[in-house]
Amino acid sequence: MSSVHKATAFAPASVANVAIGFDILGFAVDELGDKVTVTRKPERGVTITDISGVDADLPKKPEDNTAGRALLAMAQELDLPFGFEMQIEKGIPLGSGLGGSAASAVAAVVAGNAVLEQPLSRIELLKFAMQGEAVAAGSRHADNISPSLFGGLVVTVGIDHPRVKHIPVPGQVRAVMAHPHLFLSTRQARSILRPNVAMSDFIWQTAHLAGFICGCYTNDIDLIRASLEDVVIQDQRKSLIPGFDDVRQAALAAGALGCSISGAGPTVFAWALQDSALAVREAMVKNFGRHDVKVDDWIIEINSPGARVVA
Amino acid sequence: MSSVHKATAFAPASVANVAIGFDILGFAVDELGDKVTVTRKPERGVTITDISGVDADLPKKPEDNTAGRALLAMAQELDLPFGFEMQIEKGIPLGSGLGGSAASAVAAVVAGNAVLEQPLSRIELLKFAMQGEAVAAGSRHADNISPSLFGGLVVTVGIDHPRVKHIPVPGQVRAVMAHPHLFLSTRQARSILRPNVAMSDFIWQTAHLAGFICGCYTNDIDLIRASLEDVVIQDQRKSLIPGFDDVRQAALAAGALGCSISGAGPTVFAWALQDSALAVREAMVKNFGRHDVKVDDWIIEINSPGARVVA
Repeated sequence: MSSVHKATAFAPASVANVAIGFDILGFAVDELGDKVTVTRKPERGVTITDISGVDADLPKKPEDNTAGRALLAMAQELDLPFGFEMQIEKGIPLGSGLGGSAASAVAAVVAGNAVLEQPLSRIELLKFAMQGEAVAAGSRHADNISPSLFGGLVVTVGIDHPRVKHIPVPGQVRAVMAHPHLFLSTRQARSILRPNVAMSDFIWQTAHLAGFICGCYTNDIDLIRASLEDVVIQDQRKSLIPGFDDVRQAALAAGALGCSISGAGPTVFAWALQDSALAVREAMVKNFGRHDVKVDDWIIEINSPGARVVA
Repeated sequence: MSSVHKATAFAPASVANVAIGFDILGFAVDELGDKVTVTRKPERGVTITDISGVDADLPKKPEDNTAGRALLAMAQELDLPFGFEMQIEKGIPLGSGLGGSAASAVAAVVAGNAVLEQPLSRIELLKFAMQGEAVAAGSRHADNISPSLFGGLVVTVGIDHPRVKHIPVPGQVRAVMAHPHLFLSTRQARSILRPNVAMSDFIWQTAHLAGFICGCYTNDIDLIRASLEDVVIQDQRKSLIPGFDDVRQAALAAGALGCSISGAGPTVFAWALQDSALAVREAMVKNFGRHDVKVDDWIIEINSPGARVVA
C-alpha cells in the first residue's frame, strides 16, 4: 500500500492547435497553471471540498467538474476500493483559450496517481484526463491535455488509443502570449466552424503542418516561418477577438515567426526568436490597447517538463 | 562558357501523396526512371528529335511535352542565347501513378543544367520542372517533381516559392510497389475528388500526417504504422483500381506498415519492415492476380540520391 495518502500536483496552461495543428498539436505554458490536492478517503467516490484561485465559481459536483470527472473515471476504471477528496486551486482563467479545464483534469489525475499503490504511465493518465475534459469541451480532445501532461510541444495521434509525441522546439524560439480580459466559450468557438474544409485549404494547411514539424526537427527557422500560418480555422474565429488582425500584423511586422489564436481564443500567441520576442510582445500589447482590450502577457520558453507533483 | 555541350540525365520514378500527404509528400523509386539527353544548339528554342522506351507515343512538339516545356521555361526565364536539342528515353509508363511526366521534366532540366555556363541550384530547377509537369497535370504540383529531383522522401511547402525538405526514413523500412498493367489518367483521378474535406476527416488526416513525420524523424515504427493511413483521398479513388481493397488488406495482414495508392494510381505501394517486405509483395501480387490484374512489382529502399547526370 502506498505510504502517500495526500499529494498536490501542478499542471500547466497550454496553447492548443498552434495555428496549423487543429485538435492535434499543443504546447505547454509553464508560467501559469492549476493545482489540485488529492487525499485518499476510505469511502469510494470523489468529493470536491474547495475551489479557489482565479475562477472559484466552478461546479463542486464531481460529475460536472473536469477535475472531478477525471478522478471519477480513474476510480471507476481501476475499481479502486477507496475514494478521493480534492481541493482545486485555479491559476488559469476559464474561457481564456489557455486550456484551463484541461489543466485541472491533468492536475487531478497526476495528484491522484501519486496516491495509488501502483502508479500508472502518463499515457494511461491521459485517457482519464481526456474523459474529464470532455465535460467542458463536449467531446474528447487531447490538444490541451497532452501538452499540459507531457510538457513542451506535443502532437497527439488517436483518441481511443492515443499516441503522444514530443516535438523538439529550436532553443532560440520563444512563445509570446497575450491574454485579453475577455471570456470565450470553447463550445461557442467550436460551433461557428464550418463542417467542411475546402480541398485547396486542406492542401495548404497540411503543407504548413508538415513544414512546421520538419522545421522543428531540423532547427530550420526559415521553414517554421513559412509554415506557421493557419489557413483553415483562424479566419472563422478571429471575429470573436477584437483587434486580432491588427495584433497579428503587428506581431509579424515586429519579427514574429507566426501569430495565431491560442486554442479557441481569445488568447493570442506568437512564436518569435529570442532577440525579437520583446518587440513582438510590445507590438501585440499596443495593438490590443488600440482596440481597448487589456491583456496579460508573457514571453515563455516552450520546452518544459509538464505536470508534476509539487507537494 | 561551359565545355560540356551534351549531357544525359536520369530522373527516378516517384510515389506521390504517400497516403497522408496529398499533393505535398512523395518518395523516389530509383529502380525505374526516365532519361533525357540534351545537346546545345546555336539557334534558340527546343527541338525534340527522338522519344523511345516504354512510351514512345508522346508529343514531339516541345510545348506539349513535359520535358520540352520544362526546358523551354528554363531557356525563356534565363534568356539563353542558345537552344536545346533533346532525346527522351521513357522508362516509366505514363498513367501508372509513378510520376512519369514529372521524371521526364526533371531529367530534362537536370541535363539542361549540365550544359549551362552557370548551373542552377536544385530548388531553381524545381520551378522549371514544375512548369513542365503542368502540361500533364493541368496545374503545378511538386509532389512527384520534388522526390524525383531530390531523391528519398520529401515534403514540398509552397508553389511559387517552394521549399523542399528531406525527411529521413528509418533504414529498416522498404517500399513495396505493385504496378498494375492498367492506364489511369491523372486528370480523371483528380476530377473524381470531392471539392471539400469533412472537418473530422481533416483532423484525422492531419494527425496521421504529423504522426508519420514524427515517426520518421524518431525511428518510431509503431507511430508510422498507426499513422500511415489515408482517410481522405483513398476511398474516393480506389474504385478505379480493381481489387484495391483486397490488395491493401492482404498487405496489412502480411505485416505492412501501411498500403495505399501511389499518386493518382493505379500503382499501389506499401511500406514494410525489411523482414516482411517479401511476404507483403507476395500478398499484393497474389491479390491483384485474384482480380485478373497483372502487375510489375519491386521492393525498394526509399533513401536515394535523386536525379543525376549519367553521361
